[in-house]
Amino acid sequence: MSVRDYECDFQGIVNHAVYLHYLEHTRHEFAKTLGLDVVALAKRHVNIVVVRAEIDYKASLRSGDGFIVGLDVAPLSRVRIVFDQEIHRVEDGKTDLILKARMTATAVNENGRPFLPPELDRFR
Amino acid sequence: MSVRDYECDFQGIVNHAVYLHYLEHTRHEFAKTLGLDVVALAKRHVNIVVVRAEIDYKASLRSGDGFIVGLDVAPLSRVRIVFDQEIHRVEDGKTDLILKARMTATAVNENGRPFLPPELDRFR
Amino acid sequence: MSVRDYECDFQGIVNHAVYLHYLEHTRHEFAKTLGLDVVALAKRHVNIVVVRAEIDYKASLRSGDGFIVGLDVAPLSRVRIVFDQEIHRVEDGKTDLILKARMTATAVNENGRPFLPPELDRFR
Amino acid sequence: MSVRDYECDFQGIVNHAVYLHYLEHTRHEFAKTLGLDVVALAKRHVNIVVVRAEIDYKASLRSGDGFIVGLDVAPLSRVRIVFDQEIHRVEDGKTDLILKARMTATAVNENGRPFLPPELDRFR
Repeated sequence: MSVRDYECDFQGIVNHAVYLHYLEHTRHEFAKTLGLDVVALAKRHVNIVVVRAEIDYKASLRSGDGFIVGLDVAPLSRVRIVFDQEIHRVEDGKTDLILKARMTATAVNENGRPFLPPELDRFR
Repeated sequence: MSVRDYECDFQGIVNHAVYLHYLEHTRHEFAKTLGLDVVALAKRHVNIVVVRAEIDYKASLRSGDGFIVGLDVAPLSRVRIVFDQEIHRVEDGKTDLILKARMTATAVNENGRPFLPPELDRFR
Repeated sequence: MSVRDYECDFQGIVNHAVYLHYLEHTRHEFAKTLGLDVVALAKRHVNIVVVRAEIDYKASLRSGDGFIVGLDVAPLSRVRIVFDQEIHRVEDGKTDLILKARMTATAVNENGRPFLPPELDRFR
Repeated sequence: MSVRDYECDFQGIVNHAVYLHYLEHTRHEFAKTLGLDVVALAKRHVNIVVVRAEIDYKASLRSGDGFIVGLDVAPLSRVRIVFDQEIHRVEDGKTDLILKARMTATAVNENGRPFLPPELDRFR
């Protein structure tokens, strides 16, 4: 992906909240490769929600920067799933670590009960 | 504050990244009470940046919800400042915990060196 | 309302797209005074959508600016409703025009057919 | 480009304000092909600002939709530049018109005076 100018704030750097969008987009793209569409799931009243986020910001992305977002899945329990994610700036063939994140998610059904979709079974 | 509809995503709840905006807005309002304008600071090429975020999401805000954002300052070191923050939904005089966050920030000058503005001295 | 810092972009002014959020928020708050909840409506598969926007930007809002958003309703037809809106900066008791907008909306049901909710009947 | 899920609102469709970001991103990418970096320009205290937006929304983009953004430049005057832009959904080799927009921009210098950068001379 690459930074879009409107994602930069008055400091000229990507606002710290925007990285959560990059991380989410990557998780959703990953989910699609498992046959799991988070938006379709929401229509069936199952919401995938983040329950904990831990993010270490190491450097900032700026206008025009290209970057890659990595993802590693580590299930935590029967109802929670943990994603270890990193964002790296890519420039001239070199990469720089921008941030490391550990995002913990669960799925809740209409009654607010935790419920992991069967497509995620393989990560248990 | 109260939730604006455009802050809700396809799940009908406030997107998890949006809460970071609520938290930031509260920190900046607090900074102003100390005589510290984060935007004016950026013009002098000193950027206040978040270096670590830890957020526990307990419940979700929905369209129209009113909420309050709390803030407690606990300095960590000579160059870092820690904010413990909570968001509570307010309804019928009762409050519900929506999230707890620990946000660690620092200020960097033009050379990328950590530099805490003197207005924050009292929290050391 | 007042500008939140994260709404300002790399130019230090509110990004031109953000004003559409301010305008939308005001229309939704107005709709609530008519007993019309746009989010509740979406759950019944009726979406209020903007079909045309005309916006004249006269000046820019900056960090910390207070402003008011005005709204005037002028129905256009059986299936369209027109909002004339203005945003004014408020400072020291004086107001400055920031923008003028004419927003045309309609409601579409599940089959994509235009359908104005009866709560809007009085504006016909 | 393709829709990112967080760009969809509670109606499950891309929020009408988000399209202005898509249009802006395309204009900035175009500007770069002319050697004009809008962010670098802002550092020299020249802001490119939208002074008028006219947008006709024809259909909505949804989660996962791929789309292309077109751009045509038509100078209006010595100090204004007009972009005619369209967004088309691309699916199975077919395209559907999502919106048509006419965006009028100018550049203002530190004193708020209109000032078009010389890189745009060829469009006069």
